[in-house]
Amino acid sequence: MGYTDFNDTIIALATPPGVGAIGVIRLSGKEAISKVNEVFKGKDLSKEASHTIHFGTIRDGNVIIDEVLVSLFIAPKSFTREDVIEISCHGSNYIIQQIIKIFLKNGVRLAKPGEFTQRAFLNGQFDLAQAEAVADLIASDSEASHQAALNQMRGGFSGRIKELREQLIHFASMIELELDFSEEDVEFASRDDLKSLVLELSRVILQLIDSFEVGNVIKNGIPTVIAGKPNAGKSTLLNALLNEEKAIVSDIPGTTRDFIEDHMIIDGFSFRFIDTAGIRESGDKIETMGVERTMAKMKDASLILYVFDLSTDTTTEIFQEINKLENGGTPFIVVGNKSDIADSTIIEQVKKDPRAVIISANQKENLENLKAKIVEIVNLKSFKTGNTVVTNARHYQALFETNKSLEDVLTGIDGQVSNDFLAMDIRQALHHLGEITGEITTDDLLANIFSKFCIGK
Amino acid sequence: MGYTDFNDTIIALATPPGVGAIGVIRLSGKEAISKVNEVFKGKDLSKEASHTIHFGTIRDGNVIIDEVLVSLFIAPKSFTREDVIEISCHGSNYIIQQIIKIFLKNGVRLAKPGEFTQRAFLNGQFDLAQAEAVADLIASDSEASHQAALNQMRGGFSGRIKELREQLIHFASMIELELDFSEEDVEFASRDDLKSLVLELSRVILQLIDSFEVGNVIKNGIPTVIAGKPNAGKSTLLNALLNEEKAIVSDIPGTTRDFIEDHMIIDGFSFRFIDTAGIRESGDKIETMGVERTMAKMKDASLILYVFDLSTDTTTEIFQEINKLENGGTPFIVVGNKSDIADSTIIEQVKKDPRAVIISANQKENLENLKAKIVEIVNLKSFKTGNTVVTNARHYQALFETNKSLEDVLTGIDGQVSNDFLAMDIRQALHHLGEITGEITTDDLLANIFSKFCIGK
Repeated sequence: MGYTDFNDTIIALATPPGVGAIGVIRLSGKEAISKVNEVFKGKDLSKEASHTIHFGTIRDGNVIIDEVLVSLFIAPKSFTREDVIEISCHGSNYIIQQIIKIFLKNGVRLAKPGEFTQRAFLNGQFDLAQAEAVADLIASDSEASHQAALNQMRGGFSGRIKELREQLIHFASMIELELDFSEEDVEFASRDDLKSLVLELSRVILQLIDSFEVGNVIKNGIPTVIAGKPNAGKSTLLNALLNEEKAIVSDIPGTTRDFIEDHMIIDGFSFRFIDTAGIRESGDKIETMGVERTMAKMKDASLILYVFDLSTDTTTEIFQEINKLENGGTPFIVVGNKSDIADSTIIEQVKKDPRAVIISANQKENLENLKAKIVEIVNLKSFKTGNTVVTNARHYQALFETNKSLEDVLTGIDGQVSNDFLAMDIRQALHHLGEITGEITTDDLLANIFSKFCIGK
Repeated sequence: MGYTDFNDTIIALATPPGVGAIGVIRLSGKEAISKVNEVFKGKDLSKEASHTIHFGTIRDGNVIIDEVLVSLFIAPKSFTREDVIEISCHGSNYIIQQIIKIFLKNGVRLAKPGEFTQRAFLNGQFDLAQAEAVADLIASDSEASHQAALNQMRGGFSGRIKELREQLIHFASMIELELDFSEEDVEFASRDDLKSLVLELSRVILQLIDSFEVGNVIKNGIPTVIAGKPNAGKSTLLNALLNEEKAIVSDIPGTTRDFIEDHMIIDGFSFRFIDTAGIRESGDKIETMGVERTMAKMKDASLILYVFDLSTDTTTEIFQEINKLENGGTPFIVVGNKSDIADSTIIEQVKKDPRAVIISANQKENLENLKAKIVEIVNLKSFKTGNTVVTNARHYQALFETNKSLEDVLTGIDGQVSNDFLAMDIRQALHHLGEITGEITTDDLLANIFSKFCIGK
């Protein structure tokens, strides 16, 4: 499907579905104002200024559908840079449905997912990476993912890419110029300068590529395995942590539904808890089980919370396990659980390990210390970063391809290939960089990107 | 809890929780503008005109939380008649949470359920019945309930009540005047005139009381029992009806979740389907089962869809059952199911009954005819009405009490009781009428009414 038809006017619900005090319906396009004027009884919107709000009723013939507030944004001073109208109506699905139906009947089209943002992009409001950040921003559920998306939306990431691209374009044009004078064998672009530029570009791009691991973690949550023997208190611990965080957020209405299952925000970080319980239930100790699968999960994790039952485990057992964890290489915390019913001797011994935190999940004792420890380890990995971070798999792919082309350029310079080939490789690198910000696009690419948006955005 | 503290500024999310393109956060109170100015980087809102929209960022210290649009409503030109600000931010729960938290930190209070509407009421924006209609309007999910709520919100119902009340007040003042001149035995208010007024009032109030049955049905759905023997195809029928209606509404995003289970809108009417299947599964025929319970459910229903399996039932059986249904007194439709595998003879015979519709639920044949029949019967009951309808149990109660007092007045007039007693009974009637529109309120009453609202309204 092509996304280039701008002649029609689109409509969609911009707020989440469900019952609330108000719902906001958004229209964008050449006829937005006239279409609303047809059914809005209040002021003549075509005579009002941009960024003003007007009270009135929406009518279907003589039947009043609702009393509404209409916000007017006149092109190009709007999100899409087209005429935009936002209708703020009572938050009933029935009313929202009726209002949208009237406009559909009058020739307004239901917007495709992401179509408002896409129009904004195509009208030059922002570049593609910024448009994608809008979706990330909406989906963000932690401080880190939110800041990464906001930074990207406000052009931080794009700025970096554009800088790189401009430097390359400069060299590309030099080399293309040489091609024009190829008979005369001049060299406008110093090969040494080009090489050091490409090396510098490669360094930055590799840095961005590396940041994707962090970016991915920021976006999807830090993978954290809770491990330990059966009955060590893993689920009790998870529930205790979850409940506590839930209590903190639940004074803000409507947030709780995002904090279900094993996903949790601690101190602005999003954590994705991976329960290995199913694997461990089949035996008594880590050795007697599907060791490899458990180990694989632990290796993929960014952090392991290894829970010991201080009321039954022996010191020897515990330190044996800790040894194994050390060999695994993944950062871990030794969680000494059931302090309320354990012997003080074993508590004192385990406590000596700097990676240990003694808690009682059941009694909710010392959970604050455990959380502080978790955050301390996560901070070491600098998941929370003011730096530019790649969070988008498409950008990662494009950077990866850019780097390959840059390597070809380097090989070319060293092998003294002809300018034609150098120019081609540089153009290839430019192409991939351009894909990120949308200088290079295809209808398919756009359709693919924007179809992932929610309708109304 | 008293609801009279207007000195503070309140905040709440006004749109449904969940992920959408945008979320709207609403503030109301004396400090709404100054509190937003503290964290909004854009224009100085205190210098801008009412009903204008401003772009900028919300910041927590130096950290940008989001790019937002701020709508400004200056008292008294706002919903609450206080200064109101609406912040339209990106529709992420995380962002919404962060923004609300900043304001809570800065001394703004989280609004109680319905507190915005309550302030509007207490500031004289509308009366109590109109305020209650706002909640009904939001909850409305069918054309009938929507029109009843909208009519009430726009003052239709209140107007009627106020008219009655004014007439009574006129007489009350006459009688109180007589009390002042009681020594002289004058009669300012003709007892005959008073009697005919009270009779007229009673008639109108009884009409309103009667309309509550309809109003209740409009609000909660028309109770419709699907009955019939096991395997007659009751569930298949319900699913077939549900699917079809769902398909119609699901091109509007976000509406589907309200149309689950046994609740369905047909042609603007809301239906509440009551499944009696569990009762009937225990035996083969209606006689052999908990007949009384089934019958009770059927009696309470506004409509029965009685499903016959034309492929196994005999004509004799069918007409026996129809006889029983006739004796029950509830309107019913004879649904002759499985027309695709039934004998044409029995189809022809059943078809002769004017209450019969022949369908195949399985093949989805003739469902349109069935729906037309359902709507036809419902229309006879005039559930869809332009008239003033009581939909609120509290109003019903008040009208009921009013009527009791009016009856006392009538008895008093006939028994020639003293003016003191007459005046007291009239005042009692006035009190109950006043409770509906809020001329008479108590803190408890208000707290009770508004606590049923959603937060943000």
